[in-house]
Amino acid sequence: MSNPLNQVEAPLTDAVRFAPRNSVEQVEESQELAPRFDRDGLIACVTTDATSGEVLMLGYMNREALEKTILTGEAHYWSRSRQVLWHKGTTSGLVQRVVEMRIDDDQDAIWLRVSLGAGIHSAPASCHVGYRSCFYRTVALKTGKLDFAEKEKTFDPTQVYGDAPNPTVL
Amino acid sequence: MSNPLNQVEAPLTDAVRFAPRNSVEQVEESQELAPRFDRDGLIACVTTDATSGEVLMLGYMNREALEKTILTGEAHYWSRSRQVLWHKGTTSGLVQRVVEMRIDDDQDAIWLRVSLGAGIHSAPASCHVGYRSCFYRTVALKTGKLDFAEKEKTFDPTQVYGDAPNPTVL
Repeated sequence: MSNPLNQVEAPLTDAVRFAPRNSVEQVEESQELAPRFDRDGLIACVTTDATSGEVLMLGYMNREALEKTILTGEAHYWSRSRQVLWHKGTTSGLVQRVVEMRIDDDQDAIWLRVSLGAGIHSAPASCHVGYRSCFYRTVALKTGKLDFAEKEKTFDPTQVYGDAPNPTVL
Repeated sequence: MSNPLNQVEAPLTDAVRFAPRNSVEQVEESQELAPRFDRDGLIACVTTDATSGEVLMLGYMNREALEKTILTGEAHYWSRSRQVLWHKGTTSGLVQRVVEMRIDDDQDAIWLRVSLGAGIHSAPASCHVGYRSCFYRTVALKTGKLDFAEKEKTFDPTQVYGDAPNPTVL
């Protein structure tokens, strides 16, 4: 006999509890998840490739994006330029599957170690410009001159994103 | 004959030029350093251990901290809790020497790969709570429960920081 409770999908947002932030000791030394969202309701998230250790991107999560990432094991962000919840890979196929999630001392930053799916049109990659990592350029010490650490793009962004507006804000 | 211009050491803040942000193409595809500071004048900075790849911390730089990091090769941040320029390691000895510096596609985030100096009282570490990395706790998928990835502290923070106020903001 089927359990009728299994037929109703509980709303995602009820399943993960964020504790209120009561003390420095609780935030730094306990096992309670008590994230700090900034005045825009966001928490910063560093995402690295779980295999290579390369930093892929720095994104931001709102409460819902953080909950969905914990519950689904796939990276969700808040797109500040588009002002929408952003399930990474919806358009490009470049889904980020969470291998490990960490939080920092004062619980105002997340670190995701992810495995990158191959895209619809490409090898594994993460950056909307077409590179593997968003951090595809080095900054020279002393001068500040930029240089390309990735010599070639992994995919052609026009093929993947079509006419979607570029998220870069000047 | 010596050139008198060479005899005057230019102030640090004049030596690195930040280009104005003119176009998406310039920001994403050129070799011009044109960082975007947010409404508080800050740019986010991910700092990783150049050897292990571990994410050590997520900090913020203002214009001066970014310039000084480029010019000196040692990580400088803006302390949001103390509202001061922060040459990492001044108190603890845990200086971060920059091995490689990168910037992301839209130039609103920095990635520093650093080698960690040993502290006055400790093995190499980065976190004010006493751990190697600020990200010393994992977040379990599905439940959000925290667990300690680092089982022991690397140093005793009271020995290193004494009575200095804890920077964690509730």
